[in-house]
Amino acid sequence: MPDQQEIYFQLTPEFMDALHDALNHGDQEQVQHLVEPLHAADLADLLNKSKELDRVALITALSSALDPEVLPYLEEHVQEEVLELLGRDRFASLLPNLESDDVIDVIKDLEEEERNDLLQAMPARDRAILEQSLHYPEDSAGRLMQREMVVTPEHWTVGQAIDLIRLNVDLPKDFYAVFVVDPKYRPVGVLTVSRLLRSQREVFVNELMDKQYWPIPVDMDQEEVASLFRKYGLVSAPVINQDERLVGVITVDDVVDVINEEAEEDIMHLGGVSEKDTSSAVFETLKMRFPWLLVNLGTAFLSSFVISCFSTTIDHLVELAVLMSIVPALCGNAGTQTLTVVVRGLATKEITELNARRLAFKEIFVAIANGIIFAVITGIASALWFQHINLGITIGIAMIGNFVVAGTVGALIPIGLSKTSVDPAIASSVLLSAMTDTIGFFLFLGLASIFLL
Amino acid sequence: MPDQQEIYFQLTPEFMDALHDALNHGDQEQVQHLVEPLHAADLADLLNKSKELDRVALITALSSALDPEVLPYLEEHVQEEVLELLGRDRFASLLPNLESDDVIDVIKDLEEEERNDLLQAMPARDRAILEQSLHYPEDSAGRLMQREMVVTPEHWTVGQAIDLIRLNVDLPKDFYAVFVVDPKYRPVGVLTVSRLLRSQREVFVNELMDKQYWPIPVDMDQEEVASLFRKYGLVSAPVINQDERLVGVITVDDVVDVINEEAEEDIMHLGGVSEKDTSSAVFETLKMRFPWLLVNLGTAFLSSFVISCFSTTIDHLVELAVLMSIVPALCGNAGTQTLTVVVRGLATKEITELNARRLAFKEIFVAIANGIIFAVITGIASALWFQHINLGITIGIAMIGNFVVAGTVGALIPIGLSKTSVDPAIASSVLLSAMTDTIGFFLFLGLASIFLL
Repeated sequence: MPDQQEIYFQLTPEFMDALHDALNHGDQEQVQHLVEPLHAADLADLLNKSKELDRVALITALSSALDPEVLPYLEEHVQEEVLELLGRDRFASLLPNLESDDVIDVIKDLEEEERNDLLQAMPARDRAILEQSLHYPEDSAGRLMQREMVVTPEHWTVGQAIDLIRLNVDLPKDFYAVFVVDPKYRPVGVLTVSRLLRSQREVFVNELMDKQYWPIPVDMDQEEVASLFRKYGLVSAPVINQDERLVGVITVDDVVDVINEEAEEDIMHLGGVSEKDTSSAVFETLKMRFPWLLVNLGTAFLSSFVISCFSTTIDHLVELAVLMSIVPALCGNAGTQTLTVVVRGLATKEITELNARRLAFKEIFVAIANGIIFAVITGIASALWFQHINLGITIGIAMIGNFVVAGTVGALIPIGLSKTSVDPAIASSVLLSAMTDTIGFFLFLGLASIFLL
Repeated sequence: MPDQQEIYFQLTPEFMDALHDALNHGDQEQVQHLVEPLHAADLADLLNKSKELDRVALITALSSALDPEVLPYLEEHVQEEVLELLGRDRFASLLPNLESDDVIDVIKDLEEEERNDLLQAMPARDRAILEQSLHYPEDSAGRLMQREMVVTPEHWTVGQAIDLIRLNVDLPKDFYAVFVVDPKYRPVGVLTVSRLLRSQREVFVNELMDKQYWPIPVDMDQEEVASLFRKYGLVSAPVINQDERLVGVITVDDVVDVINEEAEEDIMHLGGVSEKDTSSAVFETLKMRFPWLLVNLGTAFLSSFVISCFSTTIDHLVELAVLMSIVPALCGNAGTQTLTVVVRGLATKEITELNARRLAFKEIFVAIANGIIFAVITGIASALWFQHINLGITIGIAMIGNFVVAGTVGALIPIGLSKTSVDPAIASSVLLSAMTDTIGFFLFLGLASIFLL
């Protein structure tokens, strides 16, 4: 792996040493010389991962030579630093070099005032387009799309389309499809560039175009957009407004980021952290993690309350205190297994109304089966340890009961939440552990107070 | 959402009703008529999510009309059903309609014997190419790439390249880039199709091509490949062998699946399940989840053993039994937060050697800070509940200590494991909960037996 990193990620230890040397000597020319061959993504990586002092030195050294393409790759707080160090006018002058979706990416997280100031400093035409894009809700197709695209009327020939493309200077740097529209500018078909290239000039585009295409409503959620791209293996798709007119295009490179973001969100939320956690400063991180832990402290005290109801039972038989954590701990893990599978299945649409009920039954069945197996193992181990058969039977029965709770809750909570606007990944695991803990203690200690005293 | 599903996922309740009707009446023609307009991905979805009986009826009804494009989208066990129902020869005759990477996708999971039989039933030329692909390690670039691609020598003109493309029938259906090679067939540059289309016929390809491109070694791990595509926003990339000769091309649609798979793997492994869990039958699922639960039962008994060492202490002060679960529970959650962030950061390369040390310190600092905050809250709540100040102080001190353990272990275990071949996502959470549980009980009960008796 280190070899591959050297080849591809360019930020080798030697490179870093040379760069630090140049920065320490204030050798601006050498810094620019070193950084020049880096891909924008690598330079951004370097800026994102540097210590603040190094970063300031680097941005200052690059200043006028900073590649605008770097901006969309920067983390939010790094972007703000760059804006501060370069000044608004210089920063604004970099933006028209980017495609519209990348500009949106850069300015969307800025404070409103700052954003408006930046927009004022940009050419009027760019500004109008950007303001319109910012008008679309965050995380919608409208924010994801770019305005630059290639469009031909349906009665044109391949030759006419190619001539238009050769003439036009305001096209995206690269594009993968040409959109064919009717007189009302509604898309009627899509033509991949490779098919255009292969055809004779005389052929009409509407004979050649693919009529099976996926028009994306401008207000569609980006998660839904990503689903479509992934499911149908799309490379680009037209975006339409309420009147079904073509307003932009979404390309797969933007969607790759969304897929990653959405998976990231699920992972982070299941782990009880915000998706912005990694890139945040210490105090921010602390503030973001606190509420989740506080809620969990609440459920932990709830479990303690359940235990306290049985303190006389425990006083009679201290072995109960020794064993009582096993049932909730194991069932918490079993429930998390179910929860993870269901949350992820819902997110990737592997679970839909077609099969949700069947999957829920499967989960509950698996829970019962595992419950029986682990009831036997735990029961025998406990009975042997304390030479107390009834203690083993009690923990076994509690285990089966709590396994059923874990499987049912783990499957039904996320399926239920998916029909609401609550994110199943966040809420489910708190609810699950609250249930498996309190019910686990209650079952074991309750059964014990009935059968063992 | 229901509206969008209707438009895009085509499998509406009305459609399903009509299909069931046709299947129940054995009306093969009507079934084919209903299914015909479906995109291959939707038909596959239908097959994957149907009950086994429905699926068999559907496959039988489609039989000769089954669209080969459906095959790569099918889950493993559904593929096997199709193979069984259609028979080997019919199944083999479908495969040459697919691109080579899709064929690999279909046959890679079959049992070796079955796979060889299928290969024997295919045309010799296809077979040779496929056997070579299967030779590459699973999850490598070689498995991901397709062989069909457009290549031009470096001294050609745009016109020559376009003429070749127009002549050649054995090209991929769609392609996004043309690879320029030297006389030894080593790639020297990449030319996007849109740039080719825009240029004059007389221009030489090597003047036009992009010399910054990313040649992917054929044995590179697919996770690494996905990283590259994601980082540099690639749409296609050339694959080279040990002699640096061009052997294939990887396109972004294949990589989208990998990105999804890899994120899926992390989510599943953190939740203690296999990435194949969702699509497995009940018994398989049970078998896959068992080992993880068994390991967790082991760590739960380990905690019980720690508690049992303090059973006389608990006997003296039953409040300890009531409160003792709080410390491990809360610190387990805090550790999971850290773990999730670090595991994911490592997977997405947001954490590299450049910043790993700094991030570990940040995590430990956050743990200490949160530890102090929650020590105060928990300490005061416990002291008030049981009117016992020293009990509150004891649980507070145990809390701080165990928070430090959680932060340190949560950050260092995955960073340490990432340098080995063990998947940090699987092993870390067992190790973490084993540590926070045993140390949590030990600290609280140990301190209590010193200070409270």
